[in-house]
Amino acid sequence: MTATAREPLRLAMVGGGQGAFIGAVHRMAARLDGEYRLVAGALSSRPDIARASGAELGLEPGRSYPDFDTMIAAEAARPDGAQVVAVVTPNHMHLAPAAAALRAGLHVICDKPLAADPDLALDFARGVAADGPKFLLTHNYTGYPLMRQARQMARSGELGEIRVVQAEYAQDWLAADVSNKQADWRTDPARSGAGGAIGDIGTHAHNLLRFVTGLEVEALAADLRACVPGRRVDDNANLMLRFAGGATGMLWASQVAVGQENGLRLRVYGTRGGIEWCQIDPNRMWVAELGQPGRWMTRGGPGVTAAGAAGRVPPGHPEGYLEAFATLYRDFADVVRTGRDNPLLPGLADGVEGMLFIKAALASSAADGAWTRLR
Amino acid sequence: MTATAREPLRLAMVGGGQGAFIGAVHRMAARLDGEYRLVAGALSSRPDIARASGAELGLEPGRSYPDFDTMIAAEAARPDGAQVVAVVTPNHMHLAPAAAALRAGLHVICDKPLAADPDLALDFARGVAADGPKFLLTHNYTGYPLMRQARQMARSGELGEIRVVQAEYAQDWLAADVSNKQADWRTDPARSGAGGAIGDIGTHAHNLLRFVTGLEVEALAADLRACVPGRRVDDNANLMLRFAGGATGMLWASQVAVGQENGLRLRVYGTRGGIEWCQIDPNRMWVAELGQPGRWMTRGGPGVTAAGAAGRVPPGHPEGYLEAFATLYRDFADVVRTGRDNPLLPGLADGVEGMLFIKAALASSAADGAWTRLR
Amino acid sequence: MTATAREPLRLAMVGGGQGAFIGAVHRMAARLDGEYRLVAGALSSRPDIARASGAELGLEPGRSYPDFDTMIAAEAARPDGAQVVAVVTPNHMHLAPAAAALRAGLHVICDKPLAADPDLALDFARGVAADGPKFLLTHNYTGYPLMRQARQMARSGELGEIRVVQAEYAQDWLAADVSNKQADWRTDPARSGAGGAIGDIGTHAHNLLRFVTGLEVEALAADLRACVPGRRVDDNANLMLRFAGGATGMLWASQVAVGQENGLRLRVYGTRGGIEWCQIDPNRMWVAELGQPGRWMTRGGPGVTAAGAAGRVPPGHPEGYLEAFATLYRDFADVVRTGRDNPLLPGLADGVEGMLFIKAALASSAADGAWTRLR
Amino acid sequence: MTATAREPLRLAMVGGGQGAFIGAVHRMAARLDGEYRLVAGALSSRPDIARASGAELGLEPGRSYPDFDTMIAAEAARPDGAQVVAVVTPNHMHLAPAAAALRAGLHVICDKPLAADPDLALDFARGVAADGPKFLLTHNYTGYPLMRQARQMARSGELGEIRVVQAEYAQDWLAADVSNKQADWRTDPARSGAGGAIGDIGTHAHNLLRFVTGLEVEALAADLRACVPGRRVDDNANLMLRFAGGATGMLWASQVAVGQENGLRLRVYGTRGGIEWCQIDPNRMWVAELGQPGRWMTRGGPGVTAAGAAGRVPPGHPEGYLEAFATLYRDFADVVRTGRDNPLLPGLADGVEGMLFIKAALASSAADGAWTRLR
Repeated sequence: MTATAREPLRLAMVGGGQGAFIGAVHRMAARLDGEYRLVAGALSSRPDIARASGAELGLEPGRSYPDFDTMIAAEAARPDGAQVVAVVTPNHMHLAPAAAALRAGLHVICDKPLAADPDLALDFARGVAADGPKFLLTHNYTGYPLMRQARQMARSGELGEIRVVQAEYAQDWLAADVSNKQADWRTDPARSGAGGAIGDIGTHAHNLLRFVTGLEVEALAADLRACVPGRRVDDNANLMLRFAGGATGMLWASQVAVGQENGLRLRVYGTRGGIEWCQIDPNRMWVAELGQPGRWMTRGGPGVTAAGAAGRVPPGHPEGYLEAFATLYRDFADVVRTGRDNPLLPGLADGVEGMLFIKAALASSAADGAWTRLR
Repeated sequence: MTATAREPLRLAMVGGGQGAFIGAVHRMAARLDGEYRLVAGALSSRPDIARASGAELGLEPGRSYPDFDTMIAAEAARPDGAQVVAVVTPNHMHLAPAAAALRAGLHVICDKPLAADPDLALDFARGVAADGPKFLLTHNYTGYPLMRQARQMARSGELGEIRVVQAEYAQDWLAADVSNKQADWRTDPARSGAGGAIGDIGTHAHNLLRFVTGLEVEALAADLRACVPGRRVDDNANLMLRFAGGATGMLWASQVAVGQENGLRLRVYGTRGGIEWCQIDPNRMWVAELGQPGRWMTRGGPGVTAAGAAGRVPPGHPEGYLEAFATLYRDFADVVRTGRDNPLLPGLADGVEGMLFIKAALASSAADGAWTRLR
Repeated sequence: MTATAREPLRLAMVGGGQGAFIGAVHRMAARLDGEYRLVAGALSSRPDIARASGAELGLEPGRSYPDFDTMIAAEAARPDGAQVVAVVTPNHMHLAPAAAALRAGLHVICDKPLAADPDLALDFARGVAADGPKFLLTHNYTGYPLMRQARQMARSGELGEIRVVQAEYAQDWLAADVSNKQADWRTDPARSGAGGAIGDIGTHAHNLLRFVTGLEVEALAADLRACVPGRRVDDNANLMLRFAGGATGMLWASQVAVGQENGLRLRVYGTRGGIEWCQIDPNRMWVAELGQPGRWMTRGGPGVTAAGAAGRVPPGHPEGYLEAFATLYRDFADVVRTGRDNPLLPGLADGVEGMLFIKAALASSAADGAWTRLR
Repeated sequence: MTATAREPLRLAMVGGGQGAFIGAVHRMAARLDGEYRLVAGALSSRPDIARASGAELGLEPGRSYPDFDTMIAAEAARPDGAQVVAVVTPNHMHLAPAAAALRAGLHVICDKPLAADPDLALDFARGVAADGPKFLLTHNYTGYPLMRQARQMARSGELGEIRVVQAEYAQDWLAADVSNKQADWRTDPARSGAGGAIGDIGTHAHNLLRFVTGLEVEALAADLRACVPGRRVDDNANLMLRFAGGATGMLWASQVAVGQENGLRLRVYGTRGGIEWCQIDPNRMWVAELGQPGRWMTRGGPGVTAAGAAGRVPPGHPEGYLEAFATLYRDFADVVRTGRDNPLLPGLADGVEGMLFIKAALASSAADGAWTRLR
């Protein structure tokens, strides 16, 4: 029955208490389509913040837990307990709650990258049963409707054979030696991982180009550096890429590019066509066909045919970051309900690929930019 | 107590059943910030659609009503009944449910324009008690963060004395003689009102320029026409404007401008500065100061200081139409809870001004473009 | 013989001495393609400036004349005398030298608008023999390659029947009460004409929309005003337009729009398609076909087929204002050499239409915006 | 005396006959400011084309020469002979005529890159006397006014210490296996040099970033490839750069990027600010100051202070490729007349640096991307 099908999934959250950034994003994403209801949380490792955050979010006091282990045990035991656990902690705290939730039979939505430590992540991935609960890695930029359209165009051969991929993700929020909750953990190798920009945003660019083109990076040559004196992780990463099958590319990730707010940009060039898309202006995509005038495809506009490329409102009514994020949540709700995986959703395999990417980039850079294979 | 404060408001909806456009938008807007919970609906004038729509939305069967009168009576009688009624019907059906809800002591969120018939709307407005339940008119474009920033800049004198205002709202979805649920009622004088484009979108442009500048249109000269043969309402409206205080301006509303998806654009020029903003690219606003290089202000970016101009996510993470719409819902929830009006929210007075604007435009056009005063 | 054909035409100039703006533009335009050689000048009404200007430009001392009458008489008498006279004086000084040159059998290139006084201009035009020397009016924006492409598209029916035209020309250089050589004569009714912005730039917008669409303005309703206190001519002009054949439109000309450097923009909407072009970004034109993704046509790029729409260098190598201006000069050289008129070149009839446009705009505005026919 | 100073320089041209591209560009550049007069030519290695081309350009028959040696000897012997020789042949034919002209005491304007063979170019450069005739290498993009502004901003410290440079030059005209006069020589190692895209356009990007930042590439890691099967030179070049002093960067040059007409783009990021500029939209430059709203500086607009950054016409009147090219010609005329070098003009040292860049890129790519020093 339709009405039953629309009963929201019960969601628990690990991390995302007061002062956090991405937790609030996950909650808005969960709410937008009415597919989830937040019922429990272990919102902070600090008990006072956990308690206050739970109250602010309207959790029943008994379901605002001091730690994730307690929460998962308690929720798994309730008949009306959480069905899905969202993990929105700093990177080094992703694996433990994710593993606990999966063991308890709960589905997991995990922020990216998969972990701070690639080797731990690979171990973790090997231990996950293919037929167990579902796993979503929130590489949220894949939720943009026009990235789904781009994927269809690149994979269907509309662009011809892909020759060149140019990906970049440039920001400027770490251009100075700032200190705040976000900056502190994201530049702390112990919490973020040995990669800085390469892990925090480079993996987004890497994941997005894979999502669209279907090409895998076979080897890379990297030159990472910390531009800001004293910074312990890279804040600018230059990479050359070689793809399985022969395509070539570059990837630039930077957190010191003054004037760039959140410049994730993807350009793909094939024998017959090219596309260009910019996250900052996400409702249109430049599409060039060799020998034709270039076109702007707009979300949901003429020529847009891919599943999920229409979005929620008509063309000309801009959608943005939250809608794209919410699309992952919405589509994952379908996966949970039906048990059928959705190839458009980033999952564990993508997380592993991201870990291998970070690891290879660090290794290459340490080896003076020597070409380094991902596996 | 914080947690109590966050208990969602109980929302009922009139209209917005299957096949409707704006009802779904209102529901997403209501959900995004977790400030509302949809508890009841009279979702369609057709009982079968009303019932199916209610089921699809997960309403309790007993709270999916066949008509708004029944709903308002029943909900007003329940201790856990709806607190707010959203009216999302075609224009000619706005006033009756709004009036009924207000009489029953329920707050009202009403889609724009206020009504199909200006005279009925003026009567209605005169009958509303100033100290009764609250009333929100969803001129949603005022919810865009940078329009709030523009308002502050225009009203604080940062642009100097305002001389020229150029407003336009151009679409192309009625360029051909289409027929569908949306097109049919919006081009039917009985349901939409005697104004076509002037009422459907011209009022948005008119409201937005008032919101930003604080200037009132004193008189206008209008040339309306139906470009598509057989159309019974205008689909292109050219207007010249004269503002109280001496500024001059123009307004163009069109539904036949091929290539324009939803081109609401506002340009304001004062003695010291000018601004330009386009709804289709809403996360930045062009700001020029005489004798300085022009700047892009970005939502939440450097220099943005107005209340509500930061949005929900950092600059560079685009927000869009739904977020702006949701902002009205969220801010209205505060009004309802605190009882304190918010000057940023469009209300009954704005609805009246819109009605006078439509009426004057129709009268001027009928009088071959003679300058016509709004009051 | 080819080599003979390429012998540059001998050019004389009236006005354009030191401190002038448009004279230098005409000279660069004349030089770019090697089709003209400046041989004589009456470069200023002030003898000292005339002499110094001639020396600076390398004129033979004997061909740097104190006034245009002397120059035209002397040059017409020389076997190697000037063949073409360029008139680049303030508006009120266009007709006299133009008339003298034509009487002497010399071809004329005249800056726009045709004159400061419409009635004198109409008299002048009536007196010009159709089979006499050639006449070019430098409505230079028609020289942009993509405006020639637009003309072909609009006139060939590619846009369908044209319904709506939106033209604007916005600048900010007169936003304050400035005084300099340019500002002084352009805001002096005695030298510029009774129209300010409407004549200086409004006529450009008017001419360009005629050039592209082939539509003639039948009647207009105008609201002109001087925004800057004390200014004796309009610096902002709002107009509604009605075209012969039924299309509708608006035209905005402003010199007080802070942030607009030279914003000439044309938008044309027909039943099948729409185009948008901005002089400030002239190497591309937005083209929308109903139900298709919009395209950017680029100068000389794919799909560009009109004569003269390729320009001088390949797509991606921007051309600009001077190239467009030079195109008029180059094409006029062909007209002079072959005796065959070129419909792409603005001439006397266009000058007359511009005069009627200014006259009607002033009359309408004086009549409180009453619809006023151009003839 | 002013008039004498304006006597045009006498110009001879090697190459640039019928069917050539860049020769016509040089001629327009030479004409625009009236600083040169073409008096002689050895316009083609094919005598019939040389003769026809000379006739078409209006050369005296006796000064349209069959080869450059004859021309230089003859012109050097005439009292009214050419003063400047422009060399616009394919790359492998630059050095011989340039050397001959210099030996004969004539100034040289030479198209880029300096030669097809780096080693020959270095030999050539070593042989040129510092106090001999002047030498201009037409890295024309340095002539854009805003690149001169960028240079001043970068070198004055306005951007702070430069950390990251991103340069790219992307085209698509060789995306397919085309054959025409331009494509044929530019993809023929014997005529173009062993570098394809890296030499033809990569050197432009390399020269431009040096011009603006003053930074020298110390070492590079390159991955060059021919994407089009059978092509004998690279058509896509990916590079990572290390600059003397510690900055990092990337450079991408491609001729197979479908949809890119002539996408030369430069981005420079320092500790205090960043700039971005695109050749395809050359009249504005994005300037970001850390913590301030980003600005568009426009050619000649507010805030533009560098010598040569105003151009020939006011802001809002676009200039383009030909004007930038002409600026090099104009400024070189001053150098020739005054004998004083101009640091804004690219010369022999820049040509050498470009040769070292190509050589290092080819060597690095052959060594699987090993970091390779330029000297």
